[in-house]
Amino acid sequence: MSDDRLSASEALWERAQRVIPRGVYGHQNGSTHGGRHPKFIARAEGSHFWDVDGNEYVDWMCSYGPMILGYRNPAVDAAVREQMELGDTLSLPGEPMVAYAEQLVARTQGMDWAIFGKNGADATSWAVDTARARTERSVVVKAKTAYHGARPWTIPQMTGVPAHHRDELIEVVWNDVNGLRAAFAERGEEIACVILSPYDHQPHESHLPGEGWFETVRSLCDEHGAIFIMDDVRAGFRFDLGGSHVRFGAEPDLVCYSKAIANGYALSAGLGRAALREAAEKIFFTGSFFFQSSSFAAASATLAEMERTDALTQIDRIGQLLIDGLEAQAESHGLSFVSTGPTAMPSFHFGDDPEHTMYFEWCDLATEQGAYLHPNHNWFVSAAHSEADIDLTLRATDQAFAAIAAGRQ
Amino acid sequence: MSDDRLSASEALWERAQRVIPRGVYGHQNGSTHGGRHPKFIARAEGSHFWDVDGNEYVDWMCSYGPMILGYRNPAVDAAVREQMELGDTLSLPGEPMVAYAEQLVARTQGMDWAIFGKNGADATSWAVDTARARTERSVVVKAKTAYHGARPWTIPQMTGVPAHHRDELIEVVWNDVNGLRAAFAERGEEIACVILSPYDHQPHESHLPGEGWFETVRSLCDEHGAIFIMDDVRAGFRFDLGGSHVRFGAEPDLVCYSKAIANGYALSAGLGRAALREAAEKIFFTGSFFFQSSSFAAASATLAEMERTDALTQIDRIGQLLIDGLEAQAESHGLSFVSTGPTAMPSFHFGDDPEHTMYFEWCDLATEQGAYLHPNHNWFVSAAHSEADIDLTLRATDQAFAAIAAGRQ
Repeated sequence: MSDDRLSASEALWERAQRVIPRGVYGHQNGSTHGGRHPKFIARAEGSHFWDVDGNEYVDWMCSYGPMILGYRNPAVDAAVREQMELGDTLSLPGEPMVAYAEQLVARTQGMDWAIFGKNGADATSWAVDTARARTERSVVVKAKTAYHGARPWTIPQMTGVPAHHRDELIEVVWNDVNGLRAAFAERGEEIACVILSPYDHQPHESHLPGEGWFETVRSLCDEHGAIFIMDDVRAGFRFDLGGSHVRFGAEPDLVCYSKAIANGYALSAGLGRAALREAAEKIFFTGSFFFQSSSFAAASATLAEMERTDALTQIDRIGQLLIDGLEAQAESHGLSFVSTGPTAMPSFHFGDDPEHTMYFEWCDLATEQGAYLHPNHNWFVSAAHSEADIDLTLRATDQAFAAIAAGRQ
Repeated sequence: MSDDRLSASEALWERAQRVIPRGVYGHQNGSTHGGRHPKFIARAEGSHFWDVDGNEYVDWMCSYGPMILGYRNPAVDAAVREQMELGDTLSLPGEPMVAYAEQLVARTQGMDWAIFGKNGADATSWAVDTARARTERSVVVKAKTAYHGARPWTIPQMTGVPAHHRDELIEVVWNDVNGLRAAFAERGEEIACVILSPYDHQPHESHLPGEGWFETVRSLCDEHGAIFIMDDVRAGFRFDLGGSHVRFGAEPDLVCYSKAIANGYALSAGLGRAALREAAEKIFFTGSFFFQSSSFAAASATLAEMERTDALTQIDRIGQLLIDGLEAQAESHGLSFVSTGPTAMPSFHFGDDPEHTMYFEWCDLATEQGAYLHPNHNWFVSAAHSEADIDLTLRATDQAFAAIAAGRQ
């Protein structure tokens, strides 16, 4: 769909397609959204961004999670600038890595030490390797369709990856306590680890942990000598600064963070209990930019700002306003609209919309009106979102609901 | 070894060991060097760094490659700061990604498009996946002991990785044309790709491509329908801005860059010929920070500065002065000292020092005198290194050579 409002986006998309496979690969490929969505961003501040045509949006994606204190957060960016005056990637690590390890370990419930990488998948794959080193077993249990990074053991699409690289994988249905018990009963001696997110993220809905789910994971792991890995890459820092496992009542052995921990600067972390440290020391784990000091400076500043500003209370409050506002609007338009997932990362869909075509259109219409809504992913709330953003968003969504309601008549 | 000169390094090392496995894991673990080496860096500028005790060094590691224009290069850092004013990791890519793809594709010989990740291993593993998608085969041919990143198919130490994840690997001896021919004769139908560095990097010496080596790789790949991948992660941008394959006479189908392309900011790149684009479009490849605009701004500025300042001529000149100076010194001290590898990334070892214990000690002594020398890795020369750095280094190494010579008597 062509649109004068997005002519600069389209022109840049043409350029991109000449030199980049699919124009943009991966999760930031804007052509997978509706035609009223922009494809490139020129600048951002706080909770807003401006696309390359100068259109302004309230951003409910928060760069798919990394932005939690607002774009260009002054405290975080000042810490990065200050570190840049000293140097960034160097021939040895600096004090910022050690200081952040101390802060994160002190803050994370149950964890005794930390390692760092760049991608979320660096951390989750490292955690699996560590569990395998510890247990001298190879089988990994995960939830069906759960995403833990673009690596062979968890990649959603196997093109280019030999099939047997996934031989050691057992997939169970989220919250299916009996299915998990059966997996352990059958192959308990082979299971190195269970890796789970704090709750189940699906494109259009979220499933919180059911009664006894994490307790069962813990007790089966204990019983069979397996390791429980919490993949907190997507949700981390949006629910509890001690780790989402605190909020959702899990007791993991290893915890993986990335996305929000440095407010957009590239960093991931793996933390573990003391008993796992020896195994972690046997793993070959490194990367050219793993010791980049600016990322640690950003992460320390992010943690301090989250605490200083009580960011989680603001995120929860704004998320609730958003959910309540949308539900009330939908009802006033006579539409069945379902909210799932916690306030900080809500997911929505329409009832009676099995292919989500209505939802896709609704997100596109609201985006055109200045509320940037992703049609195939949970959204993210940040501490920079304000009541004014809620008002602006609800004005946009009201028009979108009206159009959808009119189309159904 | 304890040393008052390094008391702050040691104190920080104690802190690090409490919260980080092995204190520091991976390639930046300073405890693997001699006891006169620092373990942490406080700040850096140009070709020098200051450790956390305030000792100053000429840095011949250049952060293991990433630093090529000097630490805190004004043009590169200004580009990053400017981008930070607009935003960095956002909900969609920005123009800097497209612009850099255009620049890099235009500059790289034989390549038609580009993708980007964070780690070097993101690019090399993506290249292998792409070759497998293209050929619908799975076998990877690499050189024995060659490092292509911390991933199962190439990791130097398999703890935590199931052994069969390396089933599809064939290792041949670098420059062994007949061995390579034999591998293709035996399993040519299964070979997806040959991945090689532009020359063979070993801890204490380098081996340039022999007569006919890359021509043989190219012709065997053509004959058997396999893909030739150039892993230019370590060497890239130190020999030819068109790719090290130009300097070393190779004609790859895919090229991988990382380390030096953004002067220390986290970025890796994969480039390919037009014929490989369709395969690349089938690969699932993404990461939370892959679209971070500051890295592309840094990379564009790095490329422009490399060209504007004719950085490669300076690197070559300084590298030659270093090699010539060290060889002359060693001779004057009656020591057998061998230089291998090209001027931009020289490797050294003593003759008659099979365990490299003498070299280890020599590097440690010179480091104490202010020339930071790595005892188990090639060194790196940057465009920021000067004649004054050569003088300072040769003063340090002269003392170290004298001590080694005295110790042999």
